[in-house]
Amino acid sequence: MSASNTPDTGYSIEEGNNASRNAYAWAKKTFTTRAGLPGEPARGLDGGFSNEIRFGQERLGISSDGIGTKIELAERLDRYDTLGYDLVAMTADDLIAAGFVPTNLSNIIDVNTLSYSVVDELMRGLHDACQFSKIAITGGEIAELGSRIGGYPGARMNFNWASTAIGVLHPSLAQPLSGAAAQPGDAVVALQSPSFRSNGYSLARKTLQRLFGDKWHEQAYDGPDAAQYPTWGDALLAPSLIYSPAVAALLDAGQPLRGAAHITGGGVADNFQRVLQNGLGAELDNLFPPLPAMQRLCEIGGIEAETAYLYWNMGNGMLLVVAPEAADAVVQQLTALGYAAQVAGRLMAEAGVTLRVAAGELRYG
Amino acid sequence: MSASNTPDTGYSIEEGNNASRNAYAWAKKTFTTRAGLPGEPARGLDGGFSNEIRFGQERLGISSDGIGTKIELAERLDRYDTLGYDLVAMTADDLIAAGFVPTNLSNIIDVNTLSYSVVDELMRGLHDACQFSKIAITGGEIAELGSRIGGYPGARMNFNWASTAIGVLHPSLAQPLSGAAAQPGDAVVALQSPSFRSNGYSLARKTLQRLFGDKWHEQAYDGPDAAQYPTWGDALLAPSLIYSPAVAALLDAGQPLRGAAHITGGGVADNFQRVLQNGLGAELDNLFPPLPAMQRLCEIGGIEAETAYLYWNMGNGMLLVVAPEAADAVVQQLTALGYAAQVAGRLMAEAGVTLRVAAGELRYG
Repeated sequence: MSASNTPDTGYSIEEGNNASRNAYAWAKKTFTTRAGLPGEPARGLDGGFSNEIRFGQERLGISSDGIGTKIELAERLDRYDTLGYDLVAMTADDLIAAGFVPTNLSNIIDVNTLSYSVVDELMRGLHDACQFSKIAITGGEIAELGSRIGGYPGARMNFNWASTAIGVLHPSLAQPLSGAAAQPGDAVVALQSPSFRSNGYSLARKTLQRLFGDKWHEQAYDGPDAAQYPTWGDALLAPSLIYSPAVAALLDAGQPLRGAAHITGGGVADNFQRVLQNGLGAELDNLFPPLPAMQRLCEIGGIEAETAYLYWNMGNGMLLVVAPEAADAVVQQLTALGYAAQVAGRLMAEAGVTLRVAAGELRYG
Repeated sequence: MSASNTPDTGYSIEEGNNASRNAYAWAKKTFTTRAGLPGEPARGLDGGFSNEIRFGQERLGISSDGIGTKIELAERLDRYDTLGYDLVAMTADDLIAAGFVPTNLSNIIDVNTLSYSVVDELMRGLHDACQFSKIAITGGEIAELGSRIGGYPGARMNFNWASTAIGVLHPSLAQPLSGAAAQPGDAVVALQSPSFRSNGYSLARKTLQRLFGDKWHEQAYDGPDAAQYPTWGDALLAPSLIYSPAVAALLDAGQPLRGAAHITGGGVADNFQRVLQNGLGAELDNLFPPLPAMQRLCEIGGIEAETAYLYWNMGNGMLLVVAPEAADAVVQQLTALGYAAQVAGRLMAEAGVTLRVAAGELRYG
């Protein structure tokens, strides 16, 4: 996928990837500062989202991320107490996808001009999300940055919100989950996503702006789940489901987990390819169907399936690679925990990821 | 200090403190999620900047902060490779002031539109600062947020930059440094600051804007150190000195450190009062003189000393409380490490902080 092929999102994925790679190269040069000392980074995790660092016998992971432009939805709807779920999901689920059980989170709120009440609502939601996922909020900062922060005009407060989470390698794992132990024939279990999570909002917003104008968030939503979401704003603000408690429970139960992919920016195939090592590929012919709001946006916005699967999770927020004989038990346990899960496909000896979805067959790599 | 007394900085310190206290109250409610588990927060650190969390035998500290509006200076001067020192200083020196030796740092760059070259310069500076302070950069994120980010018009890139640092409690310490062990008669050792660090820029910028107009950064700087800083922009962009290696070296040498205050927003007295427990006070009659640029800004901007000492570090970036008989040795060791340090005063049995400076006597509390 080259920069010139990207739809009208305003961003170049390739430029971003290049800058991230370069930033990581600078970071890597600092690893030797901790050689043989507390905080020494583990080797061989190039390109991973959650870096392993060691303190004595303890093996910790660390992950940083924000919730991007989803915040504009909260500003448009003047409703701030669900964003905490999005904030926790981004880092906690990156950590658990690498085998680290999230334990602590530190958050930074950059605001233009402080609103005590908005910060209170944000923190209430963060508290709720951290109770849900058994994470202690052990650090935080609120910075008033004036005109350095922008957002939806007339909102009580404009802000950006990011966090850094720490986790501890699950005691059953000798190494972080990387997909290195995966084999052809392994089952892929999908966990359903009831929301956009925090990705793909630029494409969604620009499409709705084009169709409905400036007040697109007030437009009646007419997807099959319209009873739940009266407006397009409501449909897009739906909070992230946090998967880390469910995946941690699988590890606690000794399920043979061989890899996990948190589906964020880049969509199903791009994120799943990171767990495919040793030349393996995958065929995913039983993914969850697209989130109704995504499906409806494709229809009314004329967005091709190829594009939608590149920018949105399309209803699948986490993919797990498990030994084939354990797949049914894994699905059962996830279901018992209240998560929607199903066997979505299998690993193949040949490279490349094929998605067989209602819109047709999509091939990657 | 009440909100109505603040000079023209655009911000209310009291409103910010209230929101921070409320955010901390929400955070504290999540501590029990880790009771008896990895990542359990230590008790009794209310109001501390660096929270202690425990993993097995390991006792870690975590601290988050950004570099605020100092970034506008870099944008005005189109020079980005020194901000890394500011970023590291904010969190690393909060950690070491609590007795945690910083080991790892994760950073988040929020940008309007990505500039590969600016990110490269930022990361080069961060690399340099982390080499200086023996910190491994083990996490990072670059987020393109479009119009949610503002800054100096025409800059190659507008951005905000924050980080979360982790540290390990120095092995010589049974508890984090809090000032609880301090006694009347203890010596206060000041470490000189050669820059504003990352605080007080709103007051500085507004003053210069008023005096010199929009292009104030190009105005010739006429302080006594003008040979080093041709323009006011250069004088204000001067990077932070990172104290953590020096304070860690004191702990390594077994110096009887009983408290430490990192002088950031709020100035000398407000930050130093945090280490004064059990009703103690302090008399500081031999602080380093104000940074020349701060002194000059007071003169040309008509800023009273009371205000300046409330918003700026005034040349003193870290204050250490040490047993009186060790004060000279501590100063000697710091000097040998290349830091400017001197005995600045002493603890008193009576509450309140008195600063005896060239501008007169300033009393707090």
